[in-house]
Amino acid sequence: MRIAFVIYDRMTALDFIGVYDPLTRLRTMDLLPDVTWEICAYTPEVRDIAGLRFVPTRVGESLGDYDLVVVPGGFGTRELAEDAGFLAWLRTAAPCPRKVSVCSGARLLGRAGFLAGKRATTHPDAFEELRPDCGALVEDQRVVEDGDIVTARGVTAAIDLGLYLVERIVGHAIQERIRRQMDYPYGA
Amino acid sequence: MRIAFVIYDRMTALDFIGVYDPLTRLRTMDLLPDVTWEICAYTPEVRDIAGLRFVPTRVGESLGDYDLVVVPGGFGTRELAEDAGFLAWLRTAAPCPRKVSVCSGARLLGRAGFLAGKRATTHPDAFEELRPDCGALVEDQRVVEDGDIVTARGVTAAIDLGLYLVERIVGHAIQERIRRQMDYPYGA
Repeated sequence: MRIAFVIYDRMTALDFIGVYDPLTRLRTMDLLPDVTWEICAYTPEVRDIAGLRFVPTRVGESLGDYDLVVVPGGFGTRELAEDAGFLAWLRTAAPCPRKVSVCSGARLLGRAGFLAGKRATTHPDAFEELRPDCGALVEDQRVVEDGDIVTARGVTAAIDLGLYLVERIVGHAIQERIRRQMDYPYGA
Repeated sequence: MRIAFVIYDRMTALDFIGVYDPLTRLRTMDLLPDVTWEICAYTPEVRDIAGLRFVPTRVGESLGDYDLVVVPGGFGTRELAEDAGFLAWLRTAAPCPRKVSVCSGARLLGRAGFLAGKRATTHPDAFEELRPDCGALVEDQRVVEDGDIVTARGVTAAIDLGLYLVERIVGHAIQERIRRQMDYPYGA
């Protein structure tokens, strides 16, 4: 089980870390010891919208070999949605059986061509934009799964997405153990 | 308004980022433009429990000049609770009008001497430990404020703490704007 956490300039850190926490607990809590992950960027220098530096472990390498690719949202999506180089890099994730996004990260999946005809969600402020831009069928739910695509609503829905993915990967009982350790009484 | 976000080896990243997101929105959403922050560590190399690297902007400098000092929890607290150098550094935060923690970060505040006789909370698994170790009066609530100390329960309570602090700093209306942008329907 190999996970790629995509990071980029001017992302929202909580979109990333909210999914990263429950998924990486699969290993840190010894629940699925063979899970591994990389922090994947298209450019070597990454800071979130508030200036916090993040350090990728892979830069510009193909995303094609991962079981799960996680794309956060944030202000940086506005530029990246028009960045042909970044979108070509993101398209290398096409063979991955699960491509997931948080918040406006859905727009990047969409601009990479992954959302055509798919049910998907994003931040409520971006519902209208996602439809014409990407051919997605927008649904107002916390987490939406459609085939190889799983999308989450705004920022904090990252946590709900992470727990949802844990349950899909290892089942309800382990998801409940992780949820308890995260002290998260909310959501599904 | 100056904030110190304390980071350390083997912390839980979500404890930090869950508070960081709502507080830094005071500036990134242009709600309180004069808020500034530093990422403060005692050692230059910091990785969370799952190996993610974080880069401090201040190393080993006094915490005494901040209005708010934020201490996350995590496995690293077990060693740091016995680390005289780290605790002496944390004690430089004594003059700060607000010292706050998430999860087992409370134990570090306690070992620094800040919790004696104070009402406080921590991860439910650590309730019993916090009492004798630090003289705290443990309360089972999501967020507990007592004078200069505000503590949050487990990991995801970081978000509730961040929104609580936003409300205390700039009031309910702005807190609601931030909560909406974070798409966080839960909590108080």
